[in-house]
Amino acid sequence: MPLQDDMKIISIDDHVIEHPRVWLDRLPAALQDRGPRIIEDEQGHHVWKYDGDLYPQIGLNAVAGKDPKDFGMEPVRYDDMIPGCYDPAERVKDMDIDGVQAEMCYPSFPGFAGGVFQRARDKDLAYACIRAWNDWQLDEWCAQAPARFLPLSLVPTWDPRATAEEIRRVAAKGSKIISFPDGPVPLGLPSFHHKTHWEPVWDACEETGLPLGLHFGSGSFVPGFSFIGSTSTSRPMGESDDEHVPSLVATAVFATNSMWSTADIVLSGMLQRHPGLKIVLAEGGIGWIPYQIERMDYSWGRHRWYQEVSKTDRPSDLFKKHFWGCFVEDYHGIANRHTIGVENILVEVDYPHSDSNWPNSRKQIAENLADVPDDEARMIVETNARKLLNFWL
Amino acid sequence: MPLQDDMKIISIDDHVIEHPRVWLDRLPAALQDRGPRIIEDEQGHHVWKYDGDLYPQIGLNAVAGKDPKDFGMEPVRYDDMIPGCYDPAERVKDMDIDGVQAEMCYPSFPGFAGGVFQRARDKDLAYACIRAWNDWQLDEWCAQAPARFLPLSLVPTWDPRATAEEIRRVAAKGSKIISFPDGPVPLGLPSFHHKTHWEPVWDACEETGLPLGLHFGSGSFVPGFSFIGSTSTSRPMGESDDEHVPSLVATAVFATNSMWSTADIVLSGMLQRHPGLKIVLAEGGIGWIPYQIERMDYSWGRHRWYQEVSKTDRPSDLFKKHFWGCFVEDYHGIANRHTIGVENILVEVDYPHSDSNWPNSRKQIAENLADVPDDEARMIVETNARKLLNFWL
Repeated sequence: MPLQDDMKIISIDDHVIEHPRVWLDRLPAALQDRGPRIIEDEQGHHVWKYDGDLYPQIGLNAVAGKDPKDFGMEPVRYDDMIPGCYDPAERVKDMDIDGVQAEMCYPSFPGFAGGVFQRARDKDLAYACIRAWNDWQLDEWCAQAPARFLPLSLVPTWDPRATAEEIRRVAAKGSKIISFPDGPVPLGLPSFHHKTHWEPVWDACEETGLPLGLHFGSGSFVPGFSFIGSTSTSRPMGESDDEHVPSLVATAVFATNSMWSTADIVLSGMLQRHPGLKIVLAEGGIGWIPYQIERMDYSWGRHRWYQEVSKTDRPSDLFKKHFWGCFVEDYHGIANRHTIGVENILVEVDYPHSDSNWPNSRKQIAENLADVPDDEARMIVETNARKLLNFWL
Repeated sequence: MPLQDDMKIISIDDHVIEHPRVWLDRLPAALQDRGPRIIEDEQGHHVWKYDGDLYPQIGLNAVAGKDPKDFGMEPVRYDDMIPGCYDPAERVKDMDIDGVQAEMCYPSFPGFAGGVFQRARDKDLAYACIRAWNDWQLDEWCAQAPARFLPLSLVPTWDPRATAEEIRRVAAKGSKIISFPDGPVPLGLPSFHHKTHWEPVWDACEETGLPLGLHFGSGSFVPGFSFIGSTSTSRPMGESDDEHVPSLVATAVFATNSMWSTADIVLSGMLQRHPGLKIVLAEGGIGWIPYQIERMDYSWGRHRWYQEVSKTDRPSDLFKKHFWGCFVEDYHGIANRHTIGVENILVEVDYPHSDSNWPNSRKQIAENLADVPDDEARMIVETNARKLLNFWL
């Protein structure tokens, strides 16, 4: 029994599909008509309308419960999805079937880190939409079952001071993590290397204890040579100038985004200025970590002398102190868990996306951990996440 | 003794700095005045002048023999470099000091896969320059010591039929490998997924038995979020819109380019149409391979049904049949060599670039292989390369 019955699975990467009234119920009256709302187009598809623009994806990649042979059929109406996508009571039932105790859900329509609002013309409206999403997540979605959901929050990335303010606001309401772009530069924002721009944000994270959650693709960058230039979610993932490129190529190299985020942050100096910062990588896997920390150490060992980087702090030490990774299936990563750091490994379920093994997530995680001693398995599936996120319900 | 005295090191990733007469000695008279030549600028630096444009790097990153603490000082004149950079007789002496039997050298001024010529306005001139480089490499550089150098050749990437013709020409003269862009798309070329465009090239590679060498960065794409948009060598590696980004970040994530190339090619269908194709990844390391082949298998297992990819050929099987990787230092990769495939691993020295351990390459490779049995060590340092490149001198 690689996974004992009393070990509870805490997944730190799942997804929620916003229901049609998330913003209608919360935006001030003056903003109501321009806020996100669902309309039905001429083909009978449900699409989001926001400040005059249409956003066709309501449930992009919401395939939980479908046979992989039917994965190409993206839902185009709410009634194409299983209700656990958008209804928290139904989600809890799906988690029970799946053997999962708690989930942390990234957004859908807004983009994983609110990229739709980052690119919006009217930033006052966008900020109001972010607060509304956060309140819905805290007051409605997670409040449905506080022991089963870990609240995640968005921030107004275009304004570091407002971001810091929102972090303090949601922390006071019980939020557990801040979703932040894995790569700010493709969104037109300063990089992690900027010495002053993001300081109020990192200060607020340290002060509140909230980690930064960096989900693959949250910087709106699709990895892979054939997708270069496709840096906006307004261009569907998988589309390319070349008529023949399967989107499977991007799916297979999600990790490279997380490798970039890791090298950027580890070599930026921000971790030395903010020793309390915690970084949680989502949907990038863990099997690349042993290679990447060795490579960073080697490169740093040779090049640190003439570059604006720490001369004393080894990248692998910074990684182990500040980073957590997660896996949905990663036998190589688990076999090399001691090189990564058992305490740095978490699990994800990715419901309702196509990487998910629902309704067999617990079974699949148990198979991944078949050769792992009980004490380490418990850390990986449960206690690492509880400590990191201060989640004891 | 992890490395027996009779095991000869064959490095498949090194670099040559073109001397000032490479093109002057070989271009037809009508093209002489626009061909690449070295001039001295007002600061006393040696720079290449080609078809009216100046290219400042003569020895970009040619730091062999320097203390890492002096790495920031790029050579700006030939007399700043050790002569082994540009003189084959001196190179052989440096290889003797380094304990290296044979080297395969990628170009400097042209870009690793001739990107300077791909971007040139006058393609007749560019094609003549490529033939001149190839002839210089075969007739002068490698002819100096045929048992010590593996000839590598460039191709006119903008014209697949001319590329095929050049492959047949250099194969007849003894070339061992074709340098090809690791990512054609950033150069403005069709991707590896195009069903017809590159067919004459792959046909010529199969017919001649020459592998494709894909050097990190040969598609002129610098990896890392902070470098997005920096897709041309006319913009120096390491420069960014953000004033603070150390180029060390890109150095630490070279592997991600090789991961993209691998996923692209494995999932393109070209390997099924060309079962004799061989792909040699250069300067991307090997420690990421166990993760990447597992991830490709997982993604393919779930998504192949509705995408234009093989329904039967497992990505990890295609990788092991068609790909070779190399390392300069990679303890994680060597510890996991059986997952990668011992027969798929080669070594590199990277002289005279900053990843190189010259004059301690043999010592460093021996340390990497300290726990490897003799028969496997011999394959990795020597016989894999001899078989792959049909090199028995």
